[in-house]
Amino acid sequence: MEKTSMNLDCLFEPRSVAVIGASNSIMKWGYIILANIITGGYKGRIYPINPREKSIQGLRAYPDVKDVPDEIDLAMIITPAKTIPEVMKKCASMGVKAAIVVPGGFSEEGSAGRGLEEQIAKIAGEGNIRLVGPNTMGIFSSGSSLCALMPPVRPSAGAISLVAQSGNLGTQLLGLGQAQGIGFSKFVSSGNEAVLFCEDYIDYFGNDSQTGVILAYIEGLDHGRKFLDIAKDTTRKKPIIVFKGGQTKAGSKAVQSHCGAMAGTEVIYNAAFKQAGAVRASTPDEMLDMGKAFARLPLPRGKRVGILTWGGGWGVVTADACEKAGLEIPDLPPATLRAVDEVLPPYWSRGNPIDLVGTLDRGPHLKCLEALVRSENIDAVIALGVVEASSAFGSFIGELSDSTAGMEFFVKEFEKTDREFEKNIIGLINEYGKPIIGVTMGEVINRYPEDHSRPVIYSAPHRAVGVLAKMVEYSNYLKSIEAG
Amino acid sequence: MEKTSMNLDCLFEPRSVAVIGASNSIMKWGYIILANIITGGYKGRIYPINPREKSIQGLRAYPDVKDVPDEIDLAMIITPAKTIPEVMKKCASMGVKAAIVVPGGFSEEGSAGRGLEEQIAKIAGEGNIRLVGPNTMGIFSSGSSLCALMPPVRPSAGAISLVAQSGNLGTQLLGLGQAQGIGFSKFVSSGNEAVLFCEDYIDYFGNDSQTGVILAYIEGLDHGRKFLDIAKDTTRKKPIIVFKGGQTKAGSKAVQSHCGAMAGTEVIYNAAFKQAGAVRASTPDEMLDMGKAFARLPLPRGKRVGILTWGGGWGVVTADACEKAGLEIPDLPPATLRAVDEVLPPYWSRGNPIDLVGTLDRGPHLKCLEALVRSENIDAVIALGVVEASSAFGSFIGELSDSTAGMEFFVKEFEKTDREFEKNIIGLINEYGKPIIGVTMGEVINRYPEDHSRPVIYSAPHRAVGVLAKMVEYSNYLKSIEAG
Repeated sequence: MEKTSMNLDCLFEPRSVAVIGASNSIMKWGYIILANIITGGYKGRIYPINPREKSIQGLRAYPDVKDVPDEIDLAMIITPAKTIPEVMKKCASMGVKAAIVVPGGFSEEGSAGRGLEEQIAKIAGEGNIRLVGPNTMGIFSSGSSLCALMPPVRPSAGAISLVAQSGNLGTQLLGLGQAQGIGFSKFVSSGNEAVLFCEDYIDYFGNDSQTGVILAYIEGLDHGRKFLDIAKDTTRKKPIIVFKGGQTKAGSKAVQSHCGAMAGTEVIYNAAFKQAGAVRASTPDEMLDMGKAFARLPLPRGKRVGILTWGGGWGVVTADACEKAGLEIPDLPPATLRAVDEVLPPYWSRGNPIDLVGTLDRGPHLKCLEALVRSENIDAVIALGVVEASSAFGSFIGELSDSTAGMEFFVKEFEKTDREFEKNIIGLINEYGKPIIGVTMGEVINRYPEDHSRPVIYSAPHRAVGVLAKMVEYSNYLKSIEAG
Repeated sequence: MEKTSMNLDCLFEPRSVAVIGASNSIMKWGYIILANIITGGYKGRIYPINPREKSIQGLRAYPDVKDVPDEIDLAMIITPAKTIPEVMKKCASMGVKAAIVVPGGFSEEGSAGRGLEEQIAKIAGEGNIRLVGPNTMGIFSSGSSLCALMPPVRPSAGAISLVAQSGNLGTQLLGLGQAQGIGFSKFVSSGNEAVLFCEDYIDYFGNDSQTGVILAYIEGLDHGRKFLDIAKDTTRKKPIIVFKGGQTKAGSKAVQSHCGAMAGTEVIYNAAFKQAGAVRASTPDEMLDMGKAFARLPLPRGKRVGILTWGGGWGVVTADACEKAGLEIPDLPPATLRAVDEVLPPYWSRGNPIDLVGTLDRGPHLKCLEALVRSENIDAVIALGVVEASSAFGSFIGELSDSTAGMEFFVKEFEKTDREFEKNIIGLINEYGKPIIGVTMGEVINRYPEDHSRPVIYSAPHRAVGVLAKMVEYSNYLKSIEAG
């Protein structure tokens, strides 16, 4: 493939941002977006543009972009659709390098809007402006602490970059990630894609050292061949996780009515994603689950899963889910059985899943986990209940305790035990180079915001299994291209 | 079918409970279970039994069950397996009506344990004792505020009753329900089922006026024919939602090793559940999602879904999920289009999904929702983003506001608007007799514990769609048996 990668640093790492259509009126997007940029902690210089204000949200305002006494890397444009060609011309004459056109009123509204969209695309082309949108909810970039977004999400920094052909779905994923402590490097709501297309962002993320995993919500691709080439090139370096909207007749119809684009034939997309080595998520939420694991865990070398469980039923459900997802639950070799024999009561199940049969002591938990991870028959481990186990038990004992002091003592002691256990999990992952995925009891996980030094934990077995199956798929893809 | 229903009131509504093996030592199950019963607020009389203590956790203790100067409805037995035949004999001689045998060490551990289990079953039979277990995590009953459980869950009261052939999975579901505000009427961890079987509890729940929906986690059935008869009879009155563990070779093997039971052939179970009109959940968590909706919403009369969405991409994903699940997204009739024309801008999509195109005003949201619900083409509505919409926006504006007072004002105002909107949703459901299911943006829902006067809300479209498809399935089943 010929290298045609576009440099989008001016968009994601701008030294200055002009907010054209900034406002002091709290119910307007011109207020909300500027406030998001300011309170998001953007590191560069901000220039609110509004002909009727001297100062906006405490910053000096300029009547026109032409009045700004500085180079402008990025213009965030929030004025009505019909004014935008004129605004873009001024931006071009000022040497603005990138623009985000927020408003709708373009091709998604039919032929009149389409003409307007072609007009701004032409101006952007002539002025060499990297244009996002129109009809976009904006971008996020952790490197610049830039929240140039309509909704109030404040993602934490991480290795995931996301391009979404739906602003509402994309920003919801950012919000979900924020709630679950999943960090992002960059985000873009690609809008109507008048100039910059989904594949341009993927190409940029592929070459971006801050991005470890790429997520893409795709409704339709205008340049299938180019996407395929870029995706193929990118998946050799890092995983692309795709969710495709418009998979059915009803869904395609909905795509067409909301963004004017045609959703493509599902069969063609399936083939293309497969050929490119892109991994498919089955729901938008699952993209996040997958992003978290791909960003933080080594890939499994095969599909043989060892299960460690704090309860029998849980092991059953997980074994079922693994087999259904094409994973294997192999028997354990004699050395592994012997290692577990040493720490569990004699009536333990002597099989895979390893059932901890109610053992409360954390020592045996860790020894069983290590026996599984080091086993020659095992490529990946799912650990059910042993993560957060002490905390769950501690807060329980604490609740039963008479005094508040007693309660606090128990909770703290048990939390300390859990954090130590987690460090040991990370140690085992690093030592053996195999992924270990934890599953907590229910919603316990929400009490502790995640950070990247902690293990990958999900709230239900089927989430862990779904992610692991996709890691095996990607691992196999990489092997197949290495084999040529 | 001949009526053979067993009265289990002595188990779920006992006037007195003896805790045999109660303890003052905080790390013992004899302590934890008694503490659960006390702090759970049990309304009856409690008698701790322990030969070495005069008083346990502030209650007078008795050396032996024979020393209790009262009738005992229920004995909770926590002493070691080998002591239990003797304990059961004493219980029988004292006229104890029901017993929960917590410890393991019976048939799940092979032939020696099997003999012990047959022994206690025989004693229970001769003494006419309703025996739960052995190897059980206990029961919950909201009517008596009885948390006779090993783990510290405190379910709120509700219309769902759950029988689980895995204590850890069952009590996890209780915990998840607690976190999500989903209320339970009764729960039983059925253990090894030496005397009382899964189908006995279902039969009892079927005739229980406090139970509106029955959930069952099933790994294997010893009396398939009896289960089928009872389930068929019950599903005419109320829904049974089943999750089957041991669906695969790996899962069945895990079942066998943790409870000694054989998981049956998947094909036979599938046929039986279908014939009985039981609804299958695809994950244990989905049982809760379904329980919530079945307990609180009218059944849809058909499969035609109207979608109202706050964003285009979300509508796409939901339409896709509906079609994949066998639901229909019909066109809207002229009257419905006209009603929406009156409240949305002229460029609205004029189709199903109805895209609110970013309209912030709650008035049009409600009018569009009513237009959908009253439409002759629509059997059920999924409302994306309009629930909790004001609160999400309010807390956002609040965050951007300069003063804490300003923030609190916004948050409160918007929350009030949401609660009013929810009342209107409940009003529409009651007026038109059609289900409306809400989907929030991300994790917003967790900020407000649910109660039964509020609409049914999920955190993601695929959860709402999965549940709705099962409601249509059950509705069709009821129609088919009515038609004979």
